[in-house]
Amino acid sequence: MSKIVEVSKSPYAKLKTIPVGSVRVNGFMGKYFETLVNVTLPTQYDLLENTGRLDNFRIAAGKMEGSYKTLFPFDDTDVYKWAETVSFALANRKLPELEKILDSVIEEVKAAQDEDGYLGTYLSGDRKKERWTNLAWNHELYNAGHLIQAAVAHRRVTGKNTLFEVAKRFADHIYNTFGPEKKEGAPGHPEVEMALVELYRETGDRKYLDLARYFIYARGKGLASVPRNPGPEYFIDHKPFVELEEITGHAVRALYLCSGATDLYLETGDEKIWQALNRLWENFVTKKMYITGGAGSRHDWESFGEEYELPNRRSYAESCASIANFMWNFRMLLATGDGKFADVMEQVLYNGLLSGISLDGKHYFYFNPLEDYGRTRRQKWFDCACCPPNLARFIVSFPGYMYTTSDDGVQVHLYEKSTARLDFKGSVVEIEQETDYPWSGEVAFTIKTDIEEPFSIYLRLPSWADDFVLRVDGKAVIAKPQNGYVKLSQSWKGKHTVELSLPMKAVFIEAHPFVRDDLGKAAVKRGPVVYCIEQADNPDFHVWTLVLNSESLKEEKGKILDREAVFLKGTGRALDISEWEGKLYRKLSEVREKTVEFTLIPYHMWANREPGAMAVWLKR
Amino acid sequence: MSKIVEVSKSPYAKLKTIPVGSVRVNGFMGKYFETLVNVTLPTQYDLLENTGRLDNFRIAAGKMEGSYKTLFPFDDTDVYKWAETVSFALANRKLPELEKILDSVIEEVKAAQDEDGYLGTYLSGDRKKERWTNLAWNHELYNAGHLIQAAVAHRRVTGKNTLFEVAKRFADHIYNTFGPEKKEGAPGHPEVEMALVELYRETGDRKYLDLARYFIYARGKGLASVPRNPGPEYFIDHKPFVELEEITGHAVRALYLCSGATDLYLETGDEKIWQALNRLWENFVTKKMYITGGAGSRHDWESFGEEYELPNRRSYAESCASIANFMWNFRMLLATGDGKFADVMEQVLYNGLLSGISLDGKHYFYFNPLEDYGRTRRQKWFDCACCPPNLARFIVSFPGYMYTTSDDGVQVHLYEKSTARLDFKGSVVEIEQETDYPWSGEVAFTIKTDIEEPFSIYLRLPSWADDFVLRVDGKAVIAKPQNGYVKLSQSWKGKHTVELSLPMKAVFIEAHPFVRDDLGKAAVKRGPVVYCIEQADNPDFHVWTLVLNSESLKEEKGKILDREAVFLKGTGRALDISEWEGKLYRKLSEVREKTVEFTLIPYHMWANREPGAMAVWLKR
Repeated sequence: MSKIVEVSKSPYAKLKTIPVGSVRVNGFMGKYFETLVNVTLPTQYDLLENTGRLDNFRIAAGKMEGSYKTLFPFDDTDVYKWAETVSFALANRKLPELEKILDSVIEEVKAAQDEDGYLGTYLSGDRKKERWTNLAWNHELYNAGHLIQAAVAHRRVTGKNTLFEVAKRFADHIYNTFGPEKKEGAPGHPEVEMALVELYRETGDRKYLDLARYFIYARGKGLASVPRNPGPEYFIDHKPFVELEEITGHAVRALYLCSGATDLYLETGDEKIWQALNRLWENFVTKKMYITGGAGSRHDWESFGEEYELPNRRSYAESCASIANFMWNFRMLLATGDGKFADVMEQVLYNGLLSGISLDGKHYFYFNPLEDYGRTRRQKWFDCACCPPNLARFIVSFPGYMYTTSDDGVQVHLYEKSTARLDFKGSVVEIEQETDYPWSGEVAFTIKTDIEEPFSIYLRLPSWADDFVLRVDGKAVIAKPQNGYVKLSQSWKGKHTVELSLPMKAVFIEAHPFVRDDLGKAAVKRGPVVYCIEQADNPDFHVWTLVLNSESLKEEKGKILDREAVFLKGTGRALDISEWEGKLYRKLSEVREKTVEFTLIPYHMWANREPGAMAVWLKR
Repeated sequence: MSKIVEVSKSPYAKLKTIPVGSVRVNGFMGKYFETLVNVTLPTQYDLLENTGRLDNFRIAAGKMEGSYKTLFPFDDTDVYKWAETVSFALANRKLPELEKILDSVIEEVKAAQDEDGYLGTYLSGDRKKERWTNLAWNHELYNAGHLIQAAVAHRRVTGKNTLFEVAKRFADHIYNTFGPEKKEGAPGHPEVEMALVELYRETGDRKYLDLARYFIYARGKGLASVPRNPGPEYFIDHKPFVELEEITGHAVRALYLCSGATDLYLETGDEKIWQALNRLWENFVTKKMYITGGAGSRHDWESFGEEYELPNRRSYAESCASIANFMWNFRMLLATGDGKFADVMEQVLYNGLLSGISLDGKHYFYFNPLEDYGRTRRQKWFDCACCPPNLARFIVSFPGYMYTTSDDGVQVHLYEKSTARLDFKGSVVEIEQETDYPWSGEVAFTIKTDIEEPFSIYLRLPSWADDFVLRVDGKAVIAKPQNGYVKLSQSWKGKHTVELSLPMKAVFIEAHPFVRDDLGKAAVKRGPVVYCIEQADNPDFHVWTLVLNSESLKEEKGKILDREAVFLKGTGRALDISEWEGKLYRKLSEVREKTVEFTLIPYHMWANREPGAMAVWLKR
């Protein structure tokens, strides 16, 4: 049961998750999936080996001479995320070679574990005495979190206990170390909270849930942070979680913390946590989120900015923050069934999340600018390499996010050419999606089941869709959407078809006037996809000089590398910058312009060709 | 002879400096000067005492128990800058109490010096063994630079050698330590280069000039930097200075380095240095400088951004970088007599430099945003307190920047109600300026001298002035400006008057279209002064919602605290943001607006009243 999040017994989950292995994706995300399995996973394994990340385990195990080979105390997690990714990939594919490598990696990890259960290669050898002395920066609990998540995934998919036993021993060590009558502490980088709740779900042992709760409530007391530079707010340790009003601090830390707190809510129904989560979500989505779903406005300390502070050229919008955004919203969706959360999942997925990985599957953005002068390029790897294996982990687990079930039916949250076999009411519902989503809003479902009694199929109506047309077995159906879903209730026994048509056309979007960098500008969105202008498609003028003219944009099939997409064409004016030579400021003057034809491409596909300027927000 | 920079024997200086003490300012800068002497200097002394900066010297001298009390290795320089400031103040005022304190401070400094001449309280006691082991971060040469500058100023003004002997001993220690056949090294934070050239000028001993030259040429070899994070470019150590094409890295480091390199050029005429300086200046002024003269676009690593990267809300524009900008341009002016450099001095002075200090003289900005949501406020002090004493030092030395002399005459670079007694041709030229500059472009000069032979008076014509009217002894004069100056040649014996009229009116300024944050926006400038809108003057609408309408702006006398100024009034439209409640993005729609009257104030005066939003660049 390769579920990412197992909430079937969670009392406050309105929706229940499905296994990653129950859906096979063959469309837009299918391409990412294939590239991931064929290119990314082997490449990343080589990088783990070549950068010394696996050697770190060998050194800690005493199998190899030397000392910690890499730069950061959290480099173990790249190995764990890779292991988790391979595990989820195995839920969908036979990959005997990778599985063999995974088993050997698990052996290396296991060998590095101490007698007492502690596992962490950074604080091994001479540094052993520093364990648990610097929770703010040493990332020991963050490491534990990723280990546990990998272990749970590995056991769920393969049935093997090899990594799971290791993780559980470390979790027990942590449980024995921390707590109100033990050592006080909180993770400098949240992550273990989600993992501990999942370990509780996997084992049924409540102590892991208690520990997650302890860690969340331990924040705001200076236990997770350093007093100055960057100070407690960076660590989201400046206030108790339940008192937070504004989302601030390190974006990934904040969003992982919110994800873990939502997991806690799903199990406990803690009302104060729930209120804080909703306040933070509202603040984030209405004041701090990029149109791409990106989070984090500042390079300095990789942090959220103030409200409406959303610079384009120096947007940080870390790939991991996009993933965290998706993960948090999925958990909020499980708690509520409210489509507004799935809307954000979709908004970040097709834009600021997939922009993190190149179409060739082996180059990555750490931060994702919304505007560039032509120098920012995806890299093969980073010293701080959190994003590449996190992107891989996300892509491979994508099928598990597409559907949920509830007592009364099945929810379809994300559209993708795919086949699914979902367990429901002790039987199976097969759902095939035939669609070119996100390039087309036409989705044809074929539903097969033996279940006689009526149940509901919920189809998400994205907030970008002004309208929709629905047919069941060829007959038009009038349905009133609720909470972002249209509900089709009937007996589905046998084979039925549902056709959903979401009219997709390019629209111009404006930002709140307080987002002053976007004043007088528009972004272009078509369906869930945000567009940008890139120099590669527009050789006749500098794309930063474009002024939008068109009322409407023409759609055209385009291709970048092996990926087909819908491009958009229009007419605009390009400013003549020759008269600006040698000047930065001048008295307001008439500007010479020329009429130009321009082409826009999906933002997530930029920087896959020759370097050049790019912009999402265009002057109008 | 209280000169800031003594270039009377410098072979490549076209212009010669005047003593700070030869001009008394009574106008706009006079207010700053008075506040400085009455409020800032005593307050800052208390802060040096209360924050432990003076105790650091006592501890290093063994007079006090304990260890280094403050956070950063460069905290000694706050004491040195204060000493330099008091020295320059003494050139203009009798301040017996402050002079007594200064003498005692010098005793403390002297007592902390080691036998071998080393002086630096951070690497004293247990840390002694770390001396000269970490040039990138320990700021030992930066400390030495400020010590030398303070000592030279102190000797020039008071004639005392007390601090000078201390500084010279340290300089000799450094000279004996570093060099091609000694230890290789370069300052992590440039500053000592300027100081060493000045020490050469003061002593005539060429070894100090050689050492300055050595340090400048030692850059680009990894001697001044750390290889990673932030890496050599931050330290301007990624290339030899003479090969630099683009101004990058830490803004203050870069601009101090350019200042020091210009000093080197003034003495040596090094052509490669000169070419590099001009390339960097061009790059800075035409691609990287804020309209306020501010430098440094990024909070992360306090650094320059890419070309045309000039965000408003998160502009860094450190106060020290503004001062460094002024200092560099003054040196370029001395080398060339070209008014384009004085234009930049003026641009930064009345805007991004004076914005660093509050009108009450005891609150400071470290960074100077060009747009704010209402949370950024000046502080009383900082852990990293470079800016407050640097601002003080600048204000007190301002008179020394107003005039220069050359073989053929006297140059007036900056206008200010003032009286000056300038040594010239073995006699004296007295110049009185009667003006309300920068609020008015009318400047009336009274010139008195015994000198019989004709000489020239050069009056700067600022680049913002479209036109000018000139009268000598009441008679209109037609003169053709050259290099930004108009030259009046005659015998000035006796008493003469010159009236310069620079028509001043508010104009709208636009930025190069590549500065995308300013697209579709205008800034307002009147004479040298950049304006902003601040909430305090505009209670009827949120200032961030303003759209400019007026073709012209009305001038009105206004006042903030004790300072009179010209405010600007106009008519605009304010966007209705109520319809945006709970939304960050929406489909492009008609916007409701209302007509409003708005008031603009000089940018440098913002944040002296109740907190509120502010913006320099306004939508048009």
